[in-house]
Amino acid sequence: MAGRALVQWEENRRNAPEALTVDVYAGGPAPDGLDGVGFYQVPYAPSTQGVDERLDIIGRMPRLEVLQLTSAGYEHVLDLVPDHVTLCNGRGLHDASTAEHALALILAAQRDLPRWAVDQRDHRWGSAPLRSLADQRVLIVGYGSIGQAVERRLLPFEAEVVRVASRARPEEDVHGVDELPGLLPHADIVVLVTPLTERTRGLFGPAEFALLRDDALVVNVGRGPVLDTGALLAQNGRVRAALDVTDPEPLPADHPLWDAPGVFVTPHVAGGSAAFYPRARAFMDAQLARWAAGEPLENVVRPGRR
Amino acid sequence: MAGRALVQWEENRRNAPEALTVDVYAGGPAPDGLDGVGFYQVPYAPSTQGVDERLDIIGRMPRLEVLQLTSAGYEHVLDLVPDHVTLCNGRGLHDASTAEHALALILAAQRDLPRWAVDQRDHRWGSAPLRSLADQRVLIVGYGSIGQAVERRLLPFEAEVVRVASRARPEEDVHGVDELPGLLPHADIVVLVTPLTERTRGLFGPAEFALLRDDALVVNVGRGPVLDTGALLAQNGRVRAALDVTDPEPLPADHPLWDAPGVFVTPHVAGGSAAFYPRARAFMDAQLARWAAGEPLENVVRPGRR
Repeated sequence: MAGRALVQWEENRRNAPEALTVDVYAGGPAPDGLDGVGFYQVPYAPSTQGVDERLDIIGRMPRLEVLQLTSAGYEHVLDLVPDHVTLCNGRGLHDASTAEHALALILAAQRDLPRWAVDQRDHRWGSAPLRSLADQRVLIVGYGSIGQAVERRLLPFEAEVVRVASRARPEEDVHGVDELPGLLPHADIVVLVTPLTERTRGLFGPAEFALLRDDALVVNVGRGPVLDTGALLAQNGRVRAALDVTDPEPLPADHPLWDAPGVFVTPHVAGGSAAFYPRARAFMDAQLARWAAGEPLENVVRPGRR
Repeated sequence: MAGRALVQWEENRRNAPEALTVDVYAGGPAPDGLDGVGFYQVPYAPSTQGVDERLDIIGRMPRLEVLQLTSAGYEHVLDLVPDHVTLCNGRGLHDASTAEHALALILAAQRDLPRWAVDQRDHRWGSAPLRSLADQRVLIVGYGSIGQAVERRLLPFEAEVVRVASRARPEEDVHGVDELPGLLPHADIVVLVTPLTERTRGLFGPAEFALLRDDALVVNVGRGPVLDTGALLAQNGRVRAALDVTDPEPLPADHPLWDAPGVFVTPHVAGGSAAFYPRARAFMDAQLARWAAGEPLENVVRPGRR
């Protein structure tokens, strides 16, 4: 299936099968020849807000067969893609990066790193008994590929992992999310790594916080609205939190979450670290080769209808 | 071998063999009956400086057979203990805690956590491309029990580990410290976890820094003087550092290390986290049982001479 492809990285253009015409588009003003594009990788941009040329140009690609995202989420393009286009997401590409940040947040909270950072700025050599990650029971809520990547990194710390997903899978020792009320009172740390859907919006609210022990830690590296910000604020430090995603996002300068006791915030940087790029480029090489050869694509989230 | 023991934790007193008379001493004013003590566990105190009753009372124990430390280091008591006393250290008890802090420091540095902590205090939602731990080559300098614990925690992050110890052990893929000049130019991260000896003092100095790539990271969770503070300051941000131990220690308020670019400092808290206590108590139970039964003790660093 020869055709024209638009990709983000020069390396993918270089490695592409000869049958393809490949151009590089990394965002910004629309390139020429959109009407011949059959495969479009929407360029990765860690924190785009508002108007977005990368998405606007989809409507100018009448021959488009494949829209390839680098994000796991794809809700934002569903209305932009005609039914005959196959939609592929970036499932797995952010796993290493996001799981790594989840561990960074857990360790930062357990080891009081935000406090030491502020003490350093003030030239203060403090001291305090520290928590640890060892011996802690960690609930991973969202046991997909990122959740599994979090688990692999947690286990050597001598922590105990409890797996929770939307539906129970007893053969894999995965609990259903409906079992949370029985699990939360025995958890030390809860890691939220779910996508945002109508079922996960507000998943962690007043009832869930109320079931947690004093000093428990909630980590969110999924999507901000999965955690009820008001319910967290109402804890007033009784339960701690380490959040890479917030609701709203970005946090306005006058938002009370900035100063909430026991809350550490990083500005939605989990998935886009240096670990993402080599994994994404390798995936794009393979996906382009599959498209050129007419083989089944990977990460298809909505097949094109003919 | 019946006798009197002084231990730090009530749990150890409760679990002790019946043949022993065990009292709890957690520091502070000397307890009665020192002249009958045969086994003394020096109470663990994370950050004692200056005069120390815990050590002073050793001289008032004429029947002492075993001096048990909870630290790996034992240089500070060598001159306080008569030759006939068996000296045992706390090797292994801090492994989980220290290795965990090493990972916390690595992730904090790679993920810019000190910056986000300061941004949070200033209510600023920043953004920046982040480094990651994945794909990085990490030299572990000091491949003893803590170094191995660091390695176990590093590997699931998809990092590459290079092992370095005082002497090469090719059968375990361990390089000798004399090979550092060939290894440093290819390292992204160097973790120092050596004890302080005359051979490790100043181990990481100007020559070693000079061999590191721009933006490489040096982590020290061993002892402060293993790293040459002046040589680090001279880097002026070219090489980054994350230090739980410093030279001098504690850092005076006017020390230039506080504001050195690319340097993150935590105040010698790695080994004494919550992870230490259950491991130390379990060790003391077993050690007391060995002593009561006349069995060989563990962690003997200097046998008593008769």
